[in-house]
Amino acid sequence: MAVADQFRVKSDFVLKETDANRKVLGAAVTAQPDAKSIDKLQTFNLAEKIADLQNVFVASKAPKLLIILQGMDTSGKDGTVKGVFGQINPLGARTVAFKAPSQAEKDHDYLWRIHQEVPSKGEIVIFNRSHYEDVLISKVHDWIDDAECVRRYAHIRDFERMLAETGTIILKFFLHISKAEQKRRLEERLADPDKHWKFDMQDLAERKYWDAYQRAYEAAISATDSETAPWYVIPSDSKTQRNLAIASIVLEKLESMKLKFPPANPDYAKIKVE
Amino acid sequence: MAVADQFRVKSDFVLKETDANRKVLGAAVTAQPDAKSIDKLQTFNLAEKIADLQNVFVASKAPKLLIILQGMDTSGKDGTVKGVFGQINPLGARTVAFKAPSQAEKDHDYLWRIHQEVPSKGEIVIFNRSHYEDVLISKVHDWIDDAECVRRYAHIRDFERMLAETGTIILKFFLHISKAEQKRRLEERLADPDKHWKFDMQDLAERKYWDAYQRAYEAAISATDSETAPWYVIPSDSKTQRNLAIASIVLEKLESMKLKFPPANPDYAKIKVE
Repeated sequence: MAVADQFRVKSDFVLKETDANRKVLGAAVTAQPDAKSIDKLQTFNLAEKIADLQNVFVASKAPKLLIILQGMDTSGKDGTVKGVFGQINPLGARTVAFKAPSQAEKDHDYLWRIHQEVPSKGEIVIFNRSHYEDVLISKVHDWIDDAECVRRYAHIRDFERMLAETGTIILKFFLHISKAEQKRRLEERLADPDKHWKFDMQDLAERKYWDAYQRAYEAAISATDSETAPWYVIPSDSKTQRNLAIASIVLEKLESMKLKFPPANPDYAKIKVE
Repeated sequence: MAVADQFRVKSDFVLKETDANRKVLGAAVTAQPDAKSIDKLQTFNLAEKIADLQNVFVASKAPKLLIILQGMDTSGKDGTVKGVFGQINPLGARTVAFKAPSQAEKDHDYLWRIHQEVPSKGEIVIFNRSHYEDVLISKVHDWIDDAECVRRYAHIRDFERMLAETGTIILKFFLHISKAEQKRRLEERLADPDKHWKFDMQDLAERKYWDAYQRAYEAAISATDSETAPWYVIPSDSKTQRNLAIASIVLEKLESMKLKFPPANPDYAKIKVE
């Protein structure tokens, strides 16, 4: 069974019933004492394979690849970028972190800044947060009502379908952590001076809306999952399991594309460099 | 009857049966000898009113306004911009002319470059050509097949609906000229050295596809007309009638918005400048 199939969101998806600490991959399954290290090494190997295939991806001007990472604060979006895409060539790959919109961005439709950053041919782009914030934080804080939220689901489905139909492969990952794990990670940031820079008082304010966020995520994921823009719900209480799952799914997708370097047109063997 | 209603495309629209030389507005109707000059003056007055209202438009941060001009070569897109929007304040208004796409633009979906240029709040943007080229020239030259063309109609409908639902007013004008009138205008460009810069051999090449273009326009207009993004078919063999019609429709729309300068918050009368 493909790893992707194990994490693809189901039509009867209930977020509350999804275990954020589920361990189904690699050495962790056998609960070996050194499982974590083994899983890390395996992820590193996958990340290197991803990097190898990315070279072919760029060279062959393959279809565009868009990877969307969403998750609660501390769920590990940055860690995923480092762990899974840390080896790829920055030539032909970009990470875009979407923060609170600027005034110019607010004065346009919410997909305006998103569309500008979508990948071009042969490019891999990773969105750290995305247009989904506009149906998550916006919904949780009642900046938009239900009718507007439903309209936006439709906009997003239409937008992603258009991207897919014009040659973009889309993979969407929800990094699912438990409320207890978030507490642990926030406390860790507070306790360790080296992690203070990562701590933001705003995270505590948003944590109060935990249940509303879970409902908003569940609704958004259910409304926008599709064959061409699938959602994967990744149990992320374990960082190693999270990276292993995402690396596996990305690699499966790249391998399924059967990428090839473009054919050598002139007979290179006959060319003499004098 | 609103001028807009007289030109809004009908559901049973047949381009071939639409007279490019129809004269229904202003002095031309009565065929006075000086009708042309009278109509020009009237258009100028409308253009000034449009400019006045645009000031309110900017100040009130009104909904965005997107005007799309499409038409065969020589149909007068540039002339419309000058005649109808010549008086407006460049602060808060832009004209964007879409040429053949660059390599970077080709490497993205065809709506990518379009979306970047849509108006922001309080802004009026005029598209001189647009995403419609991607279902016109692309269709006429068989760069896309019928299935792709139909997919694109859907993308365009979705895209424009999203823009409308996020506060953009859209007016789409097809500048309809006859084949004979195009001949006349091309010959004029060839005969007059001052107009040589406007002549492009490519226009002659495209003219050979006249019928295919007419069919492509008819199909595209029918497939993408909607309440929130209406198409107006403007008889354009007469330049004065064309500008009079478009200026009237734009002004009607601006007036219907009942724009007001934002309320003065402090009591300005009491403020003393010392």
